[in-house]
Amino acid sequence: MLHRPSDLFVYESDALTLLRGRPCAVVFPETTDEVSAVVRLCNEYELPFVPRGAGTGLSGGATPVEGCVIVECSRMTRILEVDATNRCATVQPGVINAHLSEFVAPLGLHYAPDPSSESACTIGGNVAENSGGPHTLKYGTTSPHVLALEIVLPEGSVVHLGRGDGHHLGYDLRGVFVGSEGTLGIVTAATVRLVPIPERIEAVLASFPALVPACEAVSAIIAEGIVPAALEMMDDRTIAAVEASVYAAGYPRDAKAVLLIELDGTPEAVEDECVAVERICRAHSAIEVRRARDAEERQAFWRGRKGAFGAMGRLAPDLYVHDAVVPRTRLPEVVDRITRVAEGYGLRVANVFHAGDGNLHPNLSFDQRDPEMLSRVRRLGEEILRICIEAGGVLSGEHGIGLEKRDYMRLLFGEEDLEPMRWVHDTFDPEDRCNPGKAIPSPRACTESNPRHRGAAVVRF
Amino acid sequence: MLHRPSDLFVYESDALTLLRGRPCAVVFPETTDEVSAVVRLCNEYELPFVPRGAGTGLSGGATPVEGCVIVECSRMTRILEVDATNRCATVQPGVINAHLSEFVAPLGLHYAPDPSSESACTIGGNVAENSGGPHTLKYGTTSPHVLALEIVLPEGSVVHLGRGDGHHLGYDLRGVFVGSEGTLGIVTAATVRLVPIPERIEAVLASFPALVPACEAVSAIIAEGIVPAALEMMDDRTIAAVEASVYAAGYPRDAKAVLLIELDGTPEAVEDECVAVERICRAHSAIEVRRARDAEERQAFWRGRKGAFGAMGRLAPDLYVHDAVVPRTRLPEVVDRITRVAEGYGLRVANVFHAGDGNLHPNLSFDQRDPEMLSRVRRLGEEILRICIEAGGVLSGEHGIGLEKRDYMRLLFGEEDLEPMRWVHDTFDPEDRCNPGKAIPSPRACTESNPRHRGAAVVRF
Repeated sequence: MLHRPSDLFVYESDALTLLRGRPCAVVFPETTDEVSAVVRLCNEYELPFVPRGAGTGLSGGATPVEGCVIVECSRMTRILEVDATNRCATVQPGVINAHLSEFVAPLGLHYAPDPSSESACTIGGNVAENSGGPHTLKYGTTSPHVLALEIVLPEGSVVHLGRGDGHHLGYDLRGVFVGSEGTLGIVTAATVRLVPIPERIEAVLASFPALVPACEAVSAIIAEGIVPAALEMMDDRTIAAVEASVYAAGYPRDAKAVLLIELDGTPEAVEDECVAVERICRAHSAIEVRRARDAEERQAFWRGRKGAFGAMGRLAPDLYVHDAVVPRTRLPEVVDRITRVAEGYGLRVANVFHAGDGNLHPNLSFDQRDPEMLSRVRRLGEEILRICIEAGGVLSGEHGIGLEKRDYMRLLFGEEDLEPMRWVHDTFDPEDRCNPGKAIPSPRACTESNPRHRGAAVVRF
Repeated sequence: MLHRPSDLFVYESDALTLLRGRPCAVVFPETTDEVSAVVRLCNEYELPFVPRGAGTGLSGGATPVEGCVIVECSRMTRILEVDATNRCATVQPGVINAHLSEFVAPLGLHYAPDPSSESACTIGGNVAENSGGPHTLKYGTTSPHVLALEIVLPEGSVVHLGRGDGHHLGYDLRGVFVGSEGTLGIVTAATVRLVPIPERIEAVLASFPALVPACEAVSAIIAEGIVPAALEMMDDRTIAAVEASVYAAGYPRDAKAVLLIELDGTPEAVEDECVAVERICRAHSAIEVRRARDAEERQAFWRGRKGAFGAMGRLAPDLYVHDAVVPRTRLPEVVDRITRVAEGYGLRVANVFHAGDGNLHPNLSFDQRDPEMLSRVRRLGEEILRICIEAGGVLSGEHGIGLEKRDYMRLLFGEEDLEPMRWVHDTFDPEDRCNPGKAIPSPRACTESNPRHRGAAVVRF
């Protein structure tokens, strides 16, 4: 257990460093029983507690509430069972996403959801945030890959939700817990689906003289009925940052946008789709269309994309990674508008998108030590969200709501639609002790509580 | 509104005629507001209410609780919106499953979940039961196809769950409602995913001299990495019933089992898979392997399968269609055991399976007017469930828990895992007025109520 202020400093935020809080202690359970014991003790002493994995979350889902106990699950790293016949694995929550895929690779299997932080982020955190990644386009976010969960409830008891064979009977509470951001309990084990490694994988890199034709190529690929495994876009600022970094991937430096398109499946189908994708890119004014020669070059293409956030770390001490979704067809105008608005704030945005999903990641590099700049960054962040929502989009594609976007939920949901979420919250966590203040905004008037429930829905944060 | 006893008779059960109850009235709302008004009135008069679609359910999900009001949604038949670009449609709950696919066929789209009752069952009922069908193997049950729901809650207010664009933020309550069997509210509109009609569809019919090699062929197909759109099996008794009926499909009458395998996708991939499937069936002693010459013959193959339950209606006045799941590899021994046990009861079982899923439908033809026979049918039904669960299976593949299997939930769930389901139930329906007694068994001791909740979880049925 850590409790000295100097030791606690690193736990004051997750990867969203804009939001901070001071825990009173950090504990490192290794088993379900230990998590349960910690939770029971927190209840006894009326302390809030916040589950945490690797701390790579980008929406403040693991930001400590003042004086809480951080239940750090990163030492729960055991892969408990792998069932190759039924293609599933049961793991503790601290197992690192990429480690699971590496572990089952000899069986010809992998775990499909792949956040860009896959080499650091944990399965428990992925479950909490319903994380996505480049391959969400074809394989979906975390939820459809989670078969069953073991949960320590906010009062300390242990329950099992869902079934390892995927046959859900009764209410699908498994689905409610995925994406509930640790507000309904702490995941202590997850049974996840494994999928066969595709027989053939190809990656195509296409560079464009402007953003608009690249976006049009994306729409044309989807319209042709092709579902690429991934369809990623990076703008010129991202390309420049990547190529100047250790993640340099050979992206053409003179391009205004590059598309990284991965196709997987049977050799014949992949070959046909590659040819079609290359044709579509050329028809949309691509400067260059290049297919990875081999697995090594394919990995280099990806190294640049997955290292993009790291590469931007060279530009300034802090990075604010946004995560919003707009209808795919509206990507060009939205990006254009964000760029212009950012210029008005004297800030520069670098864009990385899961273009196939319309999932936008505008990245703001800044220096938190400059309070005036910080204020501009916050105001621009809010404006970016409003622009995306005005274009028919939503708050988050894959990073979750967390603390960052909790109050923006009202931009998308009426009070009457938020109410049932509060009922579910309050029935699981009536004392509001389990990661309080995340995901669901508190009612407008804090004194109003639903007469159905014992506890008032007062969010403390 | 119907209220005369003679008019109410037909509403005493759904398609599970073994279980009956007498409603006090049946109402036919046409709009969300009317459903809400009916629900508010029921609350005012403290009457339980039971939502009902086409009454094709096979687990007693729409069995009336004594003296209830049936909220019959079959007149809510409007297709409210079709969005071809984003591939979704918003429909009222009374829209018949197959009608939706017919309506959107000119756009090259269809609604994938296809219960065998697709020509009669409604989308609202499908949502309530999380229904499956032959194409569940490749496309999943109803849940992944439901993007958003409009619900009248048990108290009468209207809420919206999920989003039409599929981006779920906050808790995934959409997922909880799908499969909740009308116990948490009444679906008044559903936005569902539409998928492109596959470019090529082929059907292969293979007949076998015994059940075991047919089952082995199924496992071999899946092991080869092929995911057929459907992989159905019928035994000799089913074949005989079908071939003697108006649904005659040209199934070989001397076979002990036939497999109906549908493959869909791009022409090249489908051709490759067809060849592989045909090879595998022959290698597993198939007597005959036949590919449908054209769409017409393919439809004939399916007519027999989808008409199988109807065909069995010729054998006796009543039919009890079971629905359990066993690990695919254990199908032969389980079927063999069920057959022998049935013989012990002097009953004959005809088997239809979604073999790819291990989803078994043992069908018992009987005459309900014979109380002694009825008692044997009930006892055999229970024994079938126990056999399947002993083999590592579950209670239901696609027909839901309903009233029929509610108390058997304890065979699969401990009290501590049922508790969270009851919390969710009680927070939405604290008076236990909305389709009471379905899906979730009441606590062992009815006087025990969770201190978190106002209402005790007393099931009245």
